[in-house]
Amino acid sequence: MKEELPNWRMPSAFAGMDVSLVDTPALLIDLDALEFNTHALHKQVHAHGVKVRAHAKAHKSVDIARLQIKAGAIGICCQKASEAQVFVEAGIQDVMISNEVMGLQKTDRVALLAREAKISICVDAVEQINQLAQSAKNHGAVIHVYIEIDIGHGRCGVKTPGEALALCNAIKSNSPSLVLAGIHAFRGSAQHMREPAERKAAVDFAIERLREIIKTLKTEGHSIEVVTGGGTGTYDLEASSGVYTEVQPGSYVLMDVDYAANKTTHHSFKHALFGFCTVMSICDTHAVLDGGLKTFAVDLGFPKVVAPGWSVKSMSDEHTVIVPGVEAEELKLGDKLKLIPGHCDPTVNLHDWLIATRGDKVETVWAVSARGALF
Amino acid sequence: MKEELPNWRMPSAFAGMDVSLVDTPALLIDLDALEFNTHALHKQVHAHGVKVRAHAKAHKSVDIARLQIKAGAIGICCQKASEAQVFVEAGIQDVMISNEVMGLQKTDRVALLAREAKISICVDAVEQINQLAQSAKNHGAVIHVYIEIDIGHGRCGVKTPGEALALCNAIKSNSPSLVLAGIHAFRGSAQHMREPAERKAAVDFAIERLREIIKTLKTEGHSIEVVTGGGTGTYDLEASSGVYTEVQPGSYVLMDVDYAANKTTHHSFKHALFGFCTVMSICDTHAVLDGGLKTFAVDLGFPKVVAPGWSVKSMSDEHTVIVPGVEAEELKLGDKLKLIPGHCDPTVNLHDWLIATRGDKVETVWAVSARGALF
Repeated sequence: MKEELPNWRMPSAFAGMDVSLVDTPALLIDLDALEFNTHALHKQVHAHGVKVRAHAKAHKSVDIARLQIKAGAIGICCQKASEAQVFVEAGIQDVMISNEVMGLQKTDRVALLAREAKISICVDAVEQINQLAQSAKNHGAVIHVYIEIDIGHGRCGVKTPGEALALCNAIKSNSPSLVLAGIHAFRGSAQHMREPAERKAAVDFAIERLREIIKTLKTEGHSIEVVTGGGTGTYDLEASSGVYTEVQPGSYVLMDVDYAANKTTHHSFKHALFGFCTVMSICDTHAVLDGGLKTFAVDLGFPKVVAPGWSVKSMSDEHTVIVPGVEAEELKLGDKLKLIPGHCDPTVNLHDWLIATRGDKVETVWAVSARGALF
Repeated sequence: MKEELPNWRMPSAFAGMDVSLVDTPALLIDLDALEFNTHALHKQVHAHGVKVRAHAKAHKSVDIARLQIKAGAIGICCQKASEAQVFVEAGIQDVMISNEVMGLQKTDRVALLAREAKISICVDAVEQINQLAQSAKNHGAVIHVYIEIDIGHGRCGVKTPGEALALCNAIKSNSPSLVLAGIHAFRGSAQHMREPAERKAAVDFAIERLREIIKTLKTEGHSIEVVTGGGTGTYDLEASSGVYTEVQPGSYVLMDVDYAANKTTHHSFKHALFGFCTVMSICDTHAVLDGGLKTFAVDLGFPKVVAPGWSVKSMSDEHTVIVPGVEAEELKLGDKLKLIPGHCDPTVNLHDWLIATRGDKVETVWAVSARGALF
């Protein structure tokens, strides 16, 4: 008659449950906000005749990817071959790996995926092209390849028309196993510039570089059908640039403290992602919540407490210490609080489940299907 | 005849494999270093007649916990009831939750575990004691309870003899479901003080507070058999204090950049945990590795590149940009590098597997059994 210990790997919530009963720490999704964000961005981008390729690295959820595609996204992008695998296995037919890979284990995975769905990937070196071609030939696959251009991030990508041309030629020489898909140009750092004028200057710089490169490539006989890039901080600038044909925003569906700090004049996405924690200890000076660094990623700062007047003082692995300011509402042991993550992408990656809520009720539970997909 | 896509959720390594062939990003364990660290610390603590209760929140691995117990640890501690469940289900018979919990879902889990193994847990409020007692009675379990004392961390715990006495009385009034196990007193912030004199002052302060509290409790008829706490930064001070009867170091087995920055005169633990990444992009100014914020936790700083002359410039979700200093060795696309994590605990929690190596060969693969155990 031994009672079963509840399986902690399973979600702590079910459809119809009161949100207040969800065990903590957990991640909650506000479905009304997520749907609002999805439709607001897609409408704005589509008005320019530009496509949305939603970045699934933000949520790692096949359920959210399907909602984005239902709302008009042409497909998704992600950062890893194993991440792409999750979405292809879920039936998504157009998946871009907006990143380079090195190593035949990785290019073999890309090639095997490319037999199941339209798979595209970035390159910034001939060695990557050679490995992709070898795997594509070995597995009888066709892989679509984007030239990545460094538009100021200082990470991956080539900078000059000559370098881009050499890569185009290398892709073409591996036809039909490799297909030149177009240009990928993303500047992560521009997404988080607070002032609209800074972001505009960053995208203007990118557009100038891209126009020069595209002109050279066209002169040399390479047709550039797709220019893809841009994120939640700059997508409107790329969409109205006349150069980009698709944008890759990811965080817009969830929103975090960092993106909300961007000054903007034309949209206002809603926070749709919340950490949910219990007050496990409290005293005159502070309260302690039962989620810490293993619940919230802090690379872009602490989470923001939704309860009025409280803010995060410090965090450790499994604790967040919060302190009251003026007009802080009273808290007591066992109270459950929402916190807005500082950075949504690596926060979601810490969790196995997203508890999707509408008002005070759980509507459904989504798996973080690609959590931990690093290969 | 469809070829199977490799399951990315499975480890990329097997016993006997050359380490250089392990797919990236991955976490490697240097078994020689791990064994050295384990025996060095245990020997030093045991020389004082003090016990080692190894903190499993650092590694979340039942395999490493078993090695620690084989090397003389009396059991393990962890931070969550669900984490405790992993170790109890693996057969470990003495598991302390060195933390408070609030909520009957959590105390029920603790009580069910307490029917399978010796389970202890911390409290700093009567409400926690009442919930633990209710669950223990409902499930016919006996739970061992430590009073947590705040010795300067400013997180959980009570500070005064009067508060500690009230908790002891509340535990005793719930006998035999609850058993007063002793005192838990840990100051996380003291672990990372760089100067030995700072750490000594912190522990001296703790010892003074603990002596006063223990004296009061004994006068009131409460026998305090166990005083437990201390971590990798201070364990030697607690072990030689004459007050602590057991210490709870965790990071010592793995070691990270942060702990290695502590100045110390008497021991030198070896780095046993390494991130393993591939150079996926390279140019004149920098190289880009294929692991970022989803491979390494950065709350205590960037990882340190093992390759001479290279250091981390920036990180994003799936990229680490490294730059060469003077005398940097040349790198090329596809090279695989080791990096020492800034903070081992939340880094391990990002991974499903630890690839245990000896020299240039993989010896075995361990699951990060309690990865994501937040409840």
